[in-house]
Amino acid sequence: MFSRVKKLFLLIGVLTLVWPSFVFSEKQVLSESTTECIDCHITATPGIVADWRKSRMATITPAEALDKDKLSRRISADKIPVKLAEVSVGCYECHGLNSDSHKDTYEHNGFAIHTVVSPLDCATCHAVEVTQFGENIMSQAYGNLMNNVVHKMLVDEINGTPTFDGTNIGLKSQDKATDAESCLYCHGTIVEVKGTKTRDTDLGEMTFPVFSGWPNQGVGRINPDGSKGSCSSCHARHQFSIKLARQPYTCSECHKGPDVPAYKVYSVSKHGNIFSSHGKEWGFNAVPWVVGEDFDSPTCATCHISLLTDPDGEVIAERSHRMNDRLANRLFGIFSTAHPKSADTTVIKNKLGLPLPAEITGEPVAEYLIDQEEQGRREDKMKKTCLACHSKTWVDNQFIRMHKVIAETNDKTLTATKVLASAWEKGAAKGLSFKQGLKIEDSIFDETIEKMWVEQWLFFANSTRYASAMAGADYGAFANGRWYMNKNIQEMADWLDFKLNVMK
Amino acid sequence: MFSRVKKLFLLIGVLTLVWPSFVFSEKQVLSESTTECIDCHITATPGIVADWRKSRMATITPAEALDKDKLSRRISADKIPVKLAEVSVGCYECHGLNSDSHKDTYEHNGFAIHTVVSPLDCATCHAVEVTQFGENIMSQAYGNLMNNVVHKMLVDEINGTPTFDGTNIGLKSQDKATDAESCLYCHGTIVEVKGTKTRDTDLGEMTFPVFSGWPNQGVGRINPDGSKGSCSSCHARHQFSIKLARQPYTCSECHKGPDVPAYKVYSVSKHGNIFSSHGKEWGFNAVPWVVGEDFDSPTCATCHISLLTDPDGEVIAERSHRMNDRLANRLFGIFSTAHPKSADTTVIKNKLGLPLPAEITGEPVAEYLIDQEEQGRREDKMKKTCLACHSKTWVDNQFIRMHKVIAETNDKTLTATKVLASAWEKGAAKGLSFKQGLKIEDSIFDETIEKMWVEQWLFFANSTRYASAMAGADYGAFANGRWYMNKNIQEMADWLDFKLNVMK
Amino acid sequence: MFSRVKKLFLLIGVLTLVWPSFVFSEKQVLSESTTECIDCHITATPGIVADWRKSRMATITPAEALDKDKLSRRISADKIPVKLAEVSVGCYECHGLNSDSHKDTYEHNGFAIHTVVSPLDCATCHAVEVTQFGENIMSQAYGNLMNNVVHKMLVDEINGTPTFDGTNIGLKSQDKATDAESCLYCHGTIVEVKGTKTRDTDLGEMTFPVFSGWPNQGVGRINPDGSKGSCSSCHARHQFSIKLARQPYTCSECHKGPDVPAYKVYSVSKHGNIFSSHGKEWGFNAVPWVVGEDFDSPTCATCHISLLTDPDGEVIAERSHRMNDRLANRLFGIFSTAHPKSADTTVIKNKLGLPLPAEITGEPVAEYLIDQEEQGRREDKMKKTCLACHSKTWVDNQFIRMHKVIAETNDKTLTATKVLASAWEKGAAKGLSFKQGLKIEDSIFDETIEKMWVEQWLFFANSTRYASAMAGADYGAFANGRWYMNKNIQEMADWLDFKLNVMK
Repeated sequence: MFSRVKKLFLLIGVLTLVWPSFVFSEKQVLSESTTECIDCHITATPGIVADWRKSRMATITPAEALDKDKLSRRISADKIPVKLAEVSVGCYECHGLNSDSHKDTYEHNGFAIHTVVSPLDCATCHAVEVTQFGENIMSQAYGNLMNNVVHKMLVDEINGTPTFDGTNIGLKSQDKATDAESCLYCHGTIVEVKGTKTRDTDLGEMTFPVFSGWPNQGVGRINPDGSKGSCSSCHARHQFSIKLARQPYTCSECHKGPDVPAYKVYSVSKHGNIFSSHGKEWGFNAVPWVVGEDFDSPTCATCHISLLTDPDGEVIAERSHRMNDRLANRLFGIFSTAHPKSADTTVIKNKLGLPLPAEITGEPVAEYLIDQEEQGRREDKMKKTCLACHSKTWVDNQFIRMHKVIAETNDKTLTATKVLASAWEKGAAKGLSFKQGLKIEDSIFDETIEKMWVEQWLFFANSTRYASAMAGADYGAFANGRWYMNKNIQEMADWLDFKLNVMK
Repeated sequence: MFSRVKKLFLLIGVLTLVWPSFVFSEKQVLSESTTECIDCHITATPGIVADWRKSRMATITPAEALDKDKLSRRISADKIPVKLAEVSVGCYECHGLNSDSHKDTYEHNGFAIHTVVSPLDCATCHAVEVTQFGENIMSQAYGNLMNNVVHKMLVDEINGTPTFDGTNIGLKSQDKATDAESCLYCHGTIVEVKGTKTRDTDLGEMTFPVFSGWPNQGVGRINPDGSKGSCSSCHARHQFSIKLARQPYTCSECHKGPDVPAYKVYSVSKHGNIFSSHGKEWGFNAVPWVVGEDFDSPTCATCHISLLTDPDGEVIAERSHRMNDRLANRLFGIFSTAHPKSADTTVIKNKLGLPLPAEITGEPVAEYLIDQEEQGRREDKMKKTCLACHSKTWVDNQFIRMHKVIAETNDKTLTATKVLASAWEKGAAKGLSFKQGLKIEDSIFDETIEKMWVEQWLFFANSTRYASAMAGADYGAFANGRWYMNKNIQEMADWLDFKLNVMK
Repeated sequence: MFSRVKKLFLLIGVLTLVWPSFVFSEKQVLSESTTECIDCHITATPGIVADWRKSRMATITPAEALDKDKLSRRISADKIPVKLAEVSVGCYECHGLNSDSHKDTYEHNGFAIHTVVSPLDCATCHAVEVTQFGENIMSQAYGNLMNNVVHKMLVDEINGTPTFDGTNIGLKSQDKATDAESCLYCHGTIVEVKGTKTRDTDLGEMTFPVFSGWPNQGVGRINPDGSKGSCSSCHARHQFSIKLARQPYTCSECHKGPDVPAYKVYSVSKHGNIFSSHGKEWGFNAVPWVVGEDFDSPTCATCHISLLTDPDGEVIAERSHRMNDRLANRLFGIFSTAHPKSADTTVIKNKLGLPLPAEITGEPVAEYLIDQEEQGRREDKMKKTCLACHSKTWVDNQFIRMHKVIAETNDKTLTATKVLASAWEKGAAKGLSFKQGLKIEDSIFDETIEKMWVEQWLFFANSTRYASAMAGADYGAFANGRWYMNKNIQEMADWLDFKLNVMK
């Protein structure tokens, strides 16, 4: 069948896949600076050096990367500064880049080095991705949480420490380190330089910057150069492997629930089952990513980010790091609405003046949300991916059901909200006041019935919606799904009864 | 180290493993009809075609499959219609089969095609499996849920939407789409044709059937040809891989808990650990499946379904798609009893006239359940699998303990039932009435104490029993196990106290 | 299609990959006794024989194992008895060892065989590991649970069966089998010989010992030879694979939560993500285990047990089966403290006379705990592993945060304890009495508020601490983390209110 020469090519291809580090390492062209870094760091941090050695960046120069055809290219800059183009991307190429704009730059053996490599550094080669990510809601994850008065109130009720004086529960405020350990692990910290520290090392005395908010790899991290986000959230240092970013375990770090159970739902879906059962043999490194050839079933990246083609090279989906490109609805929320227009959601104001995309009665705050036409465009993009493996009837019915589930879960949240409002009105709890126009009188997240209400939408309604979107069965039924939504409403009503009885 | 020749051997071996589809694809003999399907669908749904190409069905004809020795055969029909025997099983061979009996058959480019391939289609080659599955309790999953008055009452309390009028919680009924998203995702929907729809396609205007209850792949799906079940529940389209069906991820789609936590329990059991740690190298495609050679530790399929032999070819367990063949007890239930005789459990009537295998006091409704002798036969079948790797002392003790756990958990459920009955008697909740003979006065699943009672058996007792059956440790202790059983009973008693206090 | 020669190539290639055991088995030198065992057991328990065949022990003699250089050696005894040194470690070499000291030794076809192979048997070759494990807190897991009056009280409230007399909840004591199914599955049972039983086998009538507490593979198992522990807890029979012990699934059997959610936290950490995404290609069998070469990211074993070197063969961490060697703090506990000095924690006495490492007010009982200097030594050992892949600034900040989290979670537990103490004082629950000096008046684990208090530290505070230690994000926030700590305290206060209202 095959000529000998073709077979040889095949064999070499296989070898390349099986022992990439060995084959690739011959290609390394390291800068002098990086060579100097490695001289010490191969002993100082051998794991980092070994990890980086397995990376694609260590084994190909940007010039070679630019030379690929359009669909196979992994870098999006049109041109790369000459100094960088001809050497592999090593320690110095990233940690020595743009050193003037990094507040964490310090003198290190004669080099100006910064610890925290930021999206602006990565943009040198991956310009489009960094721009897109900047327009993605994730890049605003710090501000959308901490600069939103409602969300911040929730953060405080979670991270503060309750006190008890024999009768009443109070709350002692948390410090920044606690926020960093909790919500900001995923949302991102503010990384700040707080001075320097000199210490003994194997190479004598050395001075290093002192950080607050570090380490952190949250998606909305505020970096010492003022940029937002952390590419290493998904492209873990120092291998930066696309294979890793495309597997659902990466997303599971922050989307595992009970608040955003995307990974859990996926893992018991048909798609997740196929990934777990067959995925070990898939081509997670291929660019473009060919449906049916490189994989049998989608992972998170397939539907939300990656450049997909069919086996003939026809593009099914463009790569986008602005993940909302394929998202018509925001499943997550007190009430699920159309996706917000702006990645910065603190700009939203509802009738109560709160930065929330829906009123307390569930109506969407339309002016801040994408319109139906844009929703249609985005849903069509998503559906195009589905249609590679499913008929149009199947796909349309799937989305019709999901929209019904959004309405249904919003309806159940509304019932829970009515019970809570009744508690506020009757003085059984203190939160929103209805007396002279609605306003926040007290934290709406501290009392038991308020916390039950939070679980209604944050855990149970969200879970049910994710289960619908990804066909994840039990997460819409018993596993934090409808069972809990209905039970919770009954328990809220009972709590109110018992509390009113105490008040008599 | 290695001579050149040896290296070549290795490389060729690797090739064979990496690209089996390539090797197999030379064997494809496609029917003219299927070739015509593929001509368009390779563009219309490239993922489906690529997936099917990796399937065994695409690469071997039924005639070749029939030609295997008995233990290696994967098809069970004695003979195959001539027209089908000599071509690979492609699109048309399934979607064009028995078109007269499919209500979803429609004209598609000159072919009579049906969307929903049913077990009766698969029976053409897999007759024994389809017959067995029809006698399996799973095939009745729709009716056993929706036509059982008690179970249906639970469905309604889960899928309906609670309302609140300022004082009382009410319930708005769900529609069919909600049931399909929730319970029926696993149990199966009724798939019905609701007319046709014409739409533009890349190939011009085309007419397709409109479905309700579709998509769905539940095990008890009611198909447009009147058959029950969906082979693709476990043998996912269009690769139908035995490798997938034999891995526990397939079962996890519906058995992940908290109601039936089989997968969760398995995954932290010793068996599950060995599968997760070593399973990547096992022979999941081998038929028969050889203990110790093809795998080191059982998966769900090993104990419940697969044909197993020892390395000498001695049969350890016959293949059976009537999974209850090896099940003496039904772990699942308000009270766990012997396995029911009939796959259709709606035929059962207890003293209250309810279709439940036990009285409300826990006594089994013996006439509808298999007797001790049959239990012994089934348990022996199961034990034979265990004995391949464990001593008789080990295995017997394991089963003695499991039977004790069934008694223990039933006992704890009885205590919870007594607390609930006390609530009913004292008017703190409304469910069963004891006044003029026991009868259902109001839903037994709507009030908080009733929902707590449900969790007692559905979540906690079931979890503890599964943990015992599969040696899954914490699922019988802290993870939805005994800790929660005892805590829940105490909370039920407290709820009753608080409620009675309100009523004073 | 293929020529014969090509087919041969293929077969040899495949054989090499698929049946390594076949290749290894040429090295097997079996004792006559073991050969005799296998003659029958290859039919009687084919899975055990096949599994053992894949083991290293089956394919190398202790003499060969001793001959390796120091870093590569897998056995730690300086010399091995001559009789054992020159044969592979087979059935008889373990099950016939030290037969005089095993109370479960029985006559079996002319051999003195014992069922339960104990650490003292394994010590013949793995002397250092057995000694270390004996000094590890795990080896005392039975006594630390069952001989600690507080812990035993908790066991009884979990495993006993609640009763209800129409008004009050009582408790019926559990039997030993229930303890074995629940807590002792991980902690270990007492395995005792309770006589003998004769039964028919394929080889005629045979007599076997009758056991209580068997099967069990808990880490603190009390064996019939009086030794403590079970090597097969982590090194599962009969392959005893280091590959298995080094993967986190092994630890997940007992550390999956909600009480000790180490595995869950790990699995959604960055480390766990990298393991799940890349681990399939790692060298889990290598000794020593080379950072960056054999693996990209740590598993449980990496940080807690294994011998690690850098690619130059420089030792980063010594192997230790006394896992506390690298543990400065005990995260687990009502209050988290410094690690206890003694593996047997029943020796501890706090001011109340209870065997707990902290007072009820949270102060550590210093005299039984390692001092700051020893804490520093242990933390440095742990940090050395981190420093292979992380900068000192990163690592130091990580540990500073963890220590803050320990203080924070202890503080939250103290608040919960104050609410509980208030309930005791006001007579709303019965536990500790404060009247004539503190003493235990009634179980401190039976009433609802007491059970809520247990979840505060056992589930939520522990989860938050593990999340901090391993950077497991949501387990310190919504997934059994801070959200639940604060909600639980509020609910405890509400319960107290409602209960006092009933008592009025």
